[in-house]
Amino acid sequence: MPFTPTDYLPYDFANRRHIGPSQAEMVQMLQVVGAKDLDALIDDTLPAAIRQKDPLDFGKPLSEAELLRSMKKTAQKNKVLTSLIGQGYHGTVTPPAIQRNIFENPAWYTAYTPYQPEISQGRLEALLNFQTMVSDLTGLEIANASLLDEATACAEAMTMAQRVAKSKAKAFFVDENCHPQNIAVIQTRAAPLGIEVIVGDPDTLDAAAVFGGIFQFPGTHGHLRDFTDQIAALHAENAIGVIAADPLSLTLFKEPGAMGADIAIGSTQRFGVPVGYGGPHAAYMATKKAYARSMPGRIVGVSIDSHGNRAYRLSLQTREQHIRREKATSNVCTAQALLAVMAGFYAVFHGPEGLKAIAQRIHRKTARLVEGLKDAGFDVRPATFFDTVTVDVGPLQAAVIAAAVNEGINLRAVGKTRVGITLDERTRPETIEAVWRAFGITRADKDYTPHYHMPEKLIRTSDYLTHPVFHMNRAETEMMRYMRRLADRDLALDRAMIPLGSCTMKLNSAAEMMPVSWDEFALLHPYAPRDQAEGYHEMIDDLSAKLCDVTGYDAISMQPNSGAQGEYAGLLTIARYHAEQGQGHRNICLIPMSAHGTNPASAQMVGWTVVPIKSDAKGDIDLDDFRAKAAQHADNLAGCMITYPSTHGVFEETVTEVCKITHEHGGQVYIDGANMNAMVGLSRPGDLGGDVSHLNLHKTFCIPHGGGGPGMGPIGVKSHLIPHLPGDPNGGEGAVSAAAYGSPSLLPISWAYCLMMGGEGLTQATRVAILNANYIAKRLEGAFDVLYKGPTGRVAHECIIDTRPFAESAGVTVDDIAKRLIDNGFHAPTMSWPVAGTLMVEPTESETKAELDRFCDAMLAIRAEIAQIENGQIDAVNNPLKNAPHTMEDLVLDWDRPYSREVGCFPPGAFRIDKYWPPVNRVDNVWGDRNLTCTCPPMTDYLEAAE
Amino acid sequence: MPFTPTDYLPYDFANRRHIGPSQAEMVQMLQVVGAKDLDALIDDTLPAAIRQKDPLDFGKPLSEAELLRSMKKTAQKNKVLTSLIGQGYHGTVTPPAIQRNIFENPAWYTAYTPYQPEISQGRLEALLNFQTMVSDLTGLEIANASLLDEATACAEAMTMAQRVAKSKAKAFFVDENCHPQNIAVIQTRAAPLGIEVIVGDPDTLDAAAVFGGIFQFPGTHGHLRDFTDQIAALHAENAIGVIAADPLSLTLFKEPGAMGADIAIGSTQRFGVPVGYGGPHAAYMATKKAYARSMPGRIVGVSIDSHGNRAYRLSLQTREQHIRREKATSNVCTAQALLAVMAGFYAVFHGPEGLKAIAQRIHRKTARLVEGLKDAGFDVRPATFFDTVTVDVGPLQAAVIAAAVNEGINLRAVGKTRVGITLDERTRPETIEAVWRAFGITRADKDYTPHYHMPEKLIRTSDYLTHPVFHMNRAETEMMRYMRRLADRDLALDRAMIPLGSCTMKLNSAAEMMPVSWDEFALLHPYAPRDQAEGYHEMIDDLSAKLCDVTGYDAISMQPNSGAQGEYAGLLTIARYHAEQGQGHRNICLIPMSAHGTNPASAQMVGWTVVPIKSDAKGDIDLDDFRAKAAQHADNLAGCMITYPSTHGVFEETVTEVCKITHEHGGQVYIDGANMNAMVGLSRPGDLGGDVSHLNLHKTFCIPHGGGGPGMGPIGVKSHLIPHLPGDPNGGEGAVSAAAYGSPSLLPISWAYCLMMGGEGLTQATRVAILNANYIAKRLEGAFDVLYKGPTGRVAHECIIDTRPFAESAGVTVDDIAKRLIDNGFHAPTMSWPVAGTLMVEPTESETKAELDRFCDAMLAIRAEIAQIENGQIDAVNNPLKNAPHTMEDLVLDWDRPYSREVGCFPPGAFRIDKYWPPVNRVDNVWGDRNLTCTCPPMTDYLEAAE
Repeated sequence: MPFTPTDYLPYDFANRRHIGPSQAEMVQMLQVVGAKDLDALIDDTLPAAIRQKDPLDFGKPLSEAELLRSMKKTAQKNKVLTSLIGQGYHGTVTPPAIQRNIFENPAWYTAYTPYQPEISQGRLEALLNFQTMVSDLTGLEIANASLLDEATACAEAMTMAQRVAKSKAKAFFVDENCHPQNIAVIQTRAAPLGIEVIVGDPDTLDAAAVFGGIFQFPGTHGHLRDFTDQIAALHAENAIGVIAADPLSLTLFKEPGAMGADIAIGSTQRFGVPVGYGGPHAAYMATKKAYARSMPGRIVGVSIDSHGNRAYRLSLQTREQHIRREKATSNVCTAQALLAVMAGFYAVFHGPEGLKAIAQRIHRKTARLVEGLKDAGFDVRPATFFDTVTVDVGPLQAAVIAAAVNEGINLRAVGKTRVGITLDERTRPETIEAVWRAFGITRADKDYTPHYHMPEKLIRTSDYLTHPVFHMNRAETEMMRYMRRLADRDLALDRAMIPLGSCTMKLNSAAEMMPVSWDEFALLHPYAPRDQAEGYHEMIDDLSAKLCDVTGYDAISMQPNSGAQGEYAGLLTIARYHAEQGQGHRNICLIPMSAHGTNPASAQMVGWTVVPIKSDAKGDIDLDDFRAKAAQHADNLAGCMITYPSTHGVFEETVTEVCKITHEHGGQVYIDGANMNAMVGLSRPGDLGGDVSHLNLHKTFCIPHGGGGPGMGPIGVKSHLIPHLPGDPNGGEGAVSAAAYGSPSLLPISWAYCLMMGGEGLTQATRVAILNANYIAKRLEGAFDVLYKGPTGRVAHECIIDTRPFAESAGVTVDDIAKRLIDNGFHAPTMSWPVAGTLMVEPTESETKAELDRFCDAMLAIRAEIAQIENGQIDAVNNPLKNAPHTMEDLVLDWDRPYSREVGCFPPGAFRIDKYWPPVNRVDNVWGDRNLTCTCPPMTDYLEAAE
Repeated sequence: MPFTPTDYLPYDFANRRHIGPSQAEMVQMLQVVGAKDLDALIDDTLPAAIRQKDPLDFGKPLSEAELLRSMKKTAQKNKVLTSLIGQGYHGTVTPPAIQRNIFENPAWYTAYTPYQPEISQGRLEALLNFQTMVSDLTGLEIANASLLDEATACAEAMTMAQRVAKSKAKAFFVDENCHPQNIAVIQTRAAPLGIEVIVGDPDTLDAAAVFGGIFQFPGTHGHLRDFTDQIAALHAENAIGVIAADPLSLTLFKEPGAMGADIAIGSTQRFGVPVGYGGPHAAYMATKKAYARSMPGRIVGVSIDSHGNRAYRLSLQTREQHIRREKATSNVCTAQALLAVMAGFYAVFHGPEGLKAIAQRIHRKTARLVEGLKDAGFDVRPATFFDTVTVDVGPLQAAVIAAAVNEGINLRAVGKTRVGITLDERTRPETIEAVWRAFGITRADKDYTPHYHMPEKLIRTSDYLTHPVFHMNRAETEMMRYMRRLADRDLALDRAMIPLGSCTMKLNSAAEMMPVSWDEFALLHPYAPRDQAEGYHEMIDDLSAKLCDVTGYDAISMQPNSGAQGEYAGLLTIARYHAEQGQGHRNICLIPMSAHGTNPASAQMVGWTVVPIKSDAKGDIDLDDFRAKAAQHADNLAGCMITYPSTHGVFEETVTEVCKITHEHGGQVYIDGANMNAMVGLSRPGDLGGDVSHLNLHKTFCIPHGGGGPGMGPIGVKSHLIPHLPGDPNGGEGAVSAAAYGSPSLLPISWAYCLMMGGEGLTQATRVAILNANYIAKRLEGAFDVLYKGPTGRVAHECIIDTRPFAESAGVTVDDIAKRLIDNGFHAPTMSWPVAGTLMVEPTESETKAELDRFCDAMLAIRAEIAQIENGQIDAVNNPLKNAPHTMEDLVLDWDRPYSREVGCFPPGAFRIDKYWPPVNRVDNVWGDRNLTCTCPPMTDYLEAAE
């Protein structure tokens, strides 16, 4: 019979779309790695003792179409009202061209953090625009490339103030007009560090008693104050002045720099990034140049490449946690790069004229609203304002707020008798009329003459955004091409594998990404009433349940909005638990030497003392040392922080023993979830003995890296820790982020991933990730040493390639290899971490055999080039490795190299037609740090470059 | 006072986003062109006599945010039911990665038709994939790169059959089981050509009486028949057999080629392209290689470049209307490239296994549905089927259909007593249960054992989609990178100006594009009940009213889905009017020599005889000749077809006189709207004397070109012609397209444009388009002659640059200049049209002064190179012009040119870092036509290329 029913499953997302190698390829790859089948490989790799008993089961996985349909149903359970709550979150209009060409474009959202500047010039320029915008608006010399949210930026400003202040006072002053979530997170962060937080009226500031103070502009209830005097008083006492400022307000009002502030922080959310029920959006920090080296987060700077051409790079890359490690008071790692890029482009789209016009429009609308309220006899405060006022409604607060909800509007309850209203870019005349109706006023918003109620002394007099990039024509054609040009300069996942160890650069599928753009997820205010967010809660609850299944924990907190934030939140949870048990003195944390720098920094941030644990020759935790240190500190042992599988990419069999020892001595176990991509479906940290873990949803669960953020670092905990999880930042205690669920508008991505993969698919992804890593390790065998294998010679989901011997044999550094890989068409693996001078490779399950082979071919070709140097066949200095990466410019100009253009530019792996060209040659890091420039270079520089 | 209210309008779409030059730039540009201000320039350019009296006024223009909000409200007036109507339109699942990376990606949708193959290799490959897919599925040797819709493809097949058949019969047989809209459009097309259409049962075919016959597979009511015998009978009589086939069905059933068909046509809509209330989607046509030169539409073929490397190009570019002009029986110009690309990628995503599995799933669902109906006692036909059946419901037809609507489902009324049901890829178990409920059956769709009701003799036995491109891993990572690589090979509007004369490559803004993706517009079946499409009708009515205002006509028909289709529809409307007036004999059409080739072809298609009119020395219509010919043919004058402003880019003052003469002699005036971008808001064809015009919405009204379609060519008519506009293809008469409103899912783009620009903005766009053209003309003055200026020395919105002198002076052809422009970073202007050996440049209003200057600098640099040849300074053969375009490959290899790499690859205009590299050198057209290959080259070729 000619007809054969097919059993091919076209909608199998896991095996068809997400997992790279085909079944046939896997058979070939298993032959290479020498395993009978995938089961056998996994049995080899993962010790039986740590395997989970029951397979993951999430029911039938959904197809892409089913996912989008079911996700839409969930989304529609959110009610999108117009929120005029303010409190740091504002309606904003995302220019459609930015939404399409940045936010929804894989060239931007799949990019990695720009550690390799040669392949990151596009987003480095975009981030430099952001920094310039921040620096200009705040009137401070230098800005970083974003922080996680305004509240954590406040806390970072506090600890930075402590670091740089000459005052030895132990207290920090907080303006009572700061947003409540800012105060909450400051309090959380201050407590373990022994900082006393004094919340009060700025007029009551006792400058001598504090090492610094923070003031909010405009105040959370709309007051506009000039903090010049307070800051002068602080300076007189060698203390530091911080202003938390709404950057849009700074287009109209006196900037923090002009008030004498040392540090300014704030949120750029209203620069075109939807509120998203709390995030993600980019907070900013600006400071004086003198404090640059103490500023947390990443700073993009200007340097030169090996030909002397201008090139952007991350400046002062060695951050707090690397330099001071267990002395660090900041663990900032992930930033909000994608959102900072959007905010920066928003400023480029509008320019200073546009931003000012938008701010004035908002003010005029507010003025109009206020006039209507006053005409009706209401007491409205303050008398001069930007976009926020409060209205006295006596005992009718709840009634007015309810009436507003009936009009489709959320207002803010302020105290017991007032209602807060904050207008924004999206406010329309109908909105104003609806607000009036909620106050019983029937009035039409017509025949309006513009009025301004701004404090004259606070009007800004200085220029801002004078750089040419903010003065383009702003024609969409020009903007679109500018965005495309920048995107094209970068190498992201949409063009090549990014084999970054520990960073799990896997597929971020289009179906997973789409719901993030939906209004139902994008437009919810984080402090909107709970009954308007049922869709969010359905998602959060179901995803939490699934993550509990995956990890073996009993509850999840979605609040931490980065991995490092998750570590901190997890340790804080443990600390609170100890305190409740009357064991508040426990403050010793055992951390293996191989740990990520954020681990000791996080421990320090909760006030613990880090005791480092040695590694044995195999790179594993030295169990004897662990046992000895645990015993030695038994009375004060708070816990340990371990990573599983280890940062060396090995499943250590001793993990359960480590957990047992810790528990025996009264400690709690933190298992870092950075490497969960090697565990999902096979092993659960909660089963191994972990009490807390964070999960990098932006690694294992498909949230894209966005060129350096956003991320999400929710924590899972055992039941005894549940009462001690972070509280609600808007009224609760122990909050670690500005919003209760961190950056919840990203959660559709991870939820979609779980729903489309199903338990079996997730498990298969883990298995294939391990296969892919072992395949690479095997193919490179002989050419390179792979450090740290398990007892059966297998690696986990990543492997460390030892390039140290070549320094001696050929003068070739790990840097040379990384840069040469750019010529081969690849982003370099993780460099010099966790072992200096090595490369850590993590292919993930999403790469096909063809791409893995292209990478291995490239690595082997590099090894052959090294051999040629070793043999003296090619010059030790003037060779393709030392001259890498090669640019198009090299090709055009005279070629005086002892090797051909072809050898230089088209080594194995490089595409012929579709060659990726780095826009600059090797970037000079030392020059950049020595000549620190962190805003857009002046136009004269461009002219010089053009000549 | 430091505070200054700003009058900057940040949301002014027209002046801020759409129009390229800033106010300040316009001042500079006006100085260059020597005009006091823009008014003065327009007064100079546009004769007062033809200016419109009242300014366009559409009320207050909307901002992008307002547009999206108001558009959403309109969209939500459409009710999206599940349509199981079938009749050639099917639910389909667009893979999200295709939606994001193709459909919503400006790199794909802003591209122009791939006439310049060197900068179009990406989409040419994508279209070649489409052709290979069609060729494989139909079992015919050669396929084109899409036609407008299935119904017009039927008509094209008929006229092609007449061209190639040796039979001299005058009739064409049409299977009565063809979809009604196919029959309707065939009838419309046949009548003016004197073809008798015989609609009947294939068993009654009298092969001797016809030159060809068309048969539908599956039949519109689901019948599956083998047409081998009918086609054999036709062949015996030297007639041609055509099969209209659903390509998805061909994954399971015997293909047209195996039945002996000479031509196959059909729609690829269900390959991932939403129904969109009728379009756009790509129809296909396949045929035997012997008939390749008679096939309408564009064919992508394989050739070689000047280095002998494989390169894609449009084969047999000189189509019917160019070769035979007024003898042509096809005027096909625009295709559905973007949709063909999507359909091709759908096949790449799913491969043969996936497509077959999808088809089988649909069949199994249909079988299940049928079993339920049969179990309940219903008479269901046919006994074997693919996805479509009809059910006898006696007099309850309306009741059952209404019950289905209540269940959220549209069914089809068939005859008086039957109901048709067609299932598709989106059908879910709930859908089947809902259909059952509409028939009064309560039954759960569970515990199902797969059944097949397929005719065993018709099961397909041959392979298809064996090419490697259809056997990638189908991992999204790999697919995403493939789409990106192809996109990167092309130069589209998102990277550079495309200065194509007559094609108006203006901004297609993100805000305009977004609504097209909305379900409310995308998922409506064209034959859904009118009350489910209120949103569509609100949009169509309002846009029509605005287009009437713009053109001075009284009504608009949205049916024509391309410009050429609009011409044809317009002439047909005139012909019907004449017939109604008892003037059916009028068949003479006056057309100036300078007319676009589609004009005479369209006239021929309505059965008219073309009388060409001479141009005078200035390129204008020779009024004496026009008057003489009109008088000579007064008794039989049907009308004239003119273009305004002329294809020479000049506002001829004589236009009103031409119209007057035509009317005096009983003719009607067709004014081709291709150049409406020079008129909107300034002059109205209806006021000049036009009776009909078509509007290229894909030129003037911002629908993107999509790499060669989609387009929309609605016609405006004066009131006396309204009764003669095209009728409803689904039951009416005189239809020209498959769907009543052509490709209505594109209309949000044009509507959004009108709403955001407002009348004033649209008018300003026209003025700036004229300024931009005059600026280019002025800047190139002295270096190049600009042909055809108006009496005051101005050009309209485009200008023709004379490059003919250089052939003699330097041996440089227009081709050399066009290819050299690629090195400069530009798509060439329109080549050799309307004057051979010239370049026609249309910058549109969306380009900034900087981009215009970049283009002018490039052109002047080219002129300088020509001068160097003229002076003997550089070689006449081995020079940058003759060797253009230069590729990266040229750079890498040994450079034996008498000029430097720098001169070759980085002439003025070329970006330094962001250089666009064509992937191939100059493509050999002759080789390609001589060695016609129009499907993907076999794998062996790839292997050879790799070696």
